[in-house]
Amino acid sequence: MRFTSEQRLDDGVLERGFTLDGIPGLLWTPASAPAPLILLGHPGGLDKMYPRLVARARHAAAAGFAAATIELPGAGERPRSAAAEQAGADLRRALEAGGPVDDEIVDRLVLPLVDRSVPEWRAALDALLALPGISGPVGYAGGVISIGIRLAVVEPRISAALLFAGSFVPRALFEEARQVTIPLLVLLQWDDQGNDRRMALDLFDAFGSAEKTLHANMGGHTGVPAFEGDDGNRFFVRHLK
Amino acid sequence: MRFTSEQRLDDGVLERGFTLDGIPGLLWTPASAPAPLILLGHPGGLDKMYPRLVARARHAAAAGFAAATIELPGAGERPRSAAAEQAGADLRRALEAGGPVDDEIVDRLVLPLVDRSVPEWRAALDALLALPGISGPVGYAGGVISIGIRLAVVEPRISAALLFAGSFVPRALFEEARQVTIPLLVLLQWDDQGNDRRMALDLFDAFGSAEKTLHANMGGHTGVPAFEGDDGNRFFVRHLK
Repeated sequence: MRFTSEQRLDDGVLERGFTLDGIPGLLWTPASAPAPLILLGHPGGLDKMYPRLVARARHAAAAGFAAATIELPGAGERPRSAAAEQAGADLRRALEAGGPVDDEIVDRLVLPLVDRSVPEWRAALDALLALPGISGPVGYAGGVISIGIRLAVVEPRISAALLFAGSFVPRALFEEARQVTIPLLVLLQWDDQGNDRRMALDLFDAFGSAEKTLHANMGGHTGVPAFEGDDGNRFFVRHLK
Repeated sequence: MRFTSEQRLDDGVLERGFTLDGIPGLLWTPASAPAPLILLGHPGGLDKMYPRLVARARHAAAAGFAAATIELPGAGERPRSAAAEQAGADLRRALEAGGPVDDEIVDRLVLPLVDRSVPEWRAALDALLALPGISGPVGYAGGVISIGIRLAVVEPRISAALLFAGSFVPRALFEEARQVTIPLLVLLQWDDQGNDRRMALDLFDAFGSAEKTLHANMGGHTGVPAFEGDDGNRFFVRHLK
């Protein structure tokens, strides 16, 4: 891991850019140390997602958490994959035609992303936990929900996950969801026009965790209410502190 | 309204029993005054429900709210209705037979209860708001959800409602739910064996409120997690304070 930039935000949070094996990432640490870590998932494109990521990181820091994120394969500055680009285009075409979306397109779009991204998040976790000031327990928060599902199953250092049900989930990941046992908070935007709500509710049902909570709100895909951020912090305080 | 008993609880909350036109009720007031009021709904039987009601009332009082409840028609010490008893027996028989439950049974059980109970809650509100130390805004929290739906539609002094989706709802109340516009927090016990989950989710969808949130948890019908109580308080602090 190599730090590439550093700035102190006005609430005392230290923001550092880094690269890990060529993958760009961001790390936010509060003044209080050591701080448990929350990995912030996102749909790809750190520049585009930065305003939302830094807001979530600062909100987590206010509750005493460090937060970190890495770029997704094929997103932002990272090289594109022709197969992934094709799958994305096919998904958009299916949605514009009014759907439904073939399982085959979802598999082509999401399965390779999960297979490539999850080992990268785990390697980032190795490097981050080696830093002074960063400790476990570790939480995961955000989309792409399929990455979160796979991480929750394979990464034992993740103790709790806050998942955003806003993207298509391959059938195989549905089955993996049954193996998830850590405490979960699942967010669903009830009136998200681009989402399959029935599928999101079925996915919540499939999770194997004894403690799982679904929070459904109105507001469209990006309109998660501000009070949900407080609920998320309280979820992580319950499980990571 | 006539007060019939009084005791000071160990956290400083004053608990008073009262009767209003022969209907028994309970009122809890915190030391801080004036306090906004939360009406606590319940499925009937104040003696049986007392431990849960006093726990909710004390939790609300810790956040600065007064809380009050009245007995439901045909429950506790109140005279039974032969028609209601018959409908309850028919519902139990249908459930024991493995369901499904005819709309007709649900209508016979719930519609008269709502028609009788809602004016009683409104009369209680008249009397309670006349007391020194009790103020608006007013919230409603708890079951029976059909009573909450009707109250939310007809009682303008109720500003926010926390509804527990754990009972059968007549089709007519579904339609009334579309007229609800106040902020809502709906609780659903996902693994409640005695509940129709699909119906509860459809009901959430039917509510007309622009701001509505669903919290689904595991734990069976009575196993609402403790942290949900905090979420409920935060919901009422947002809307009543």
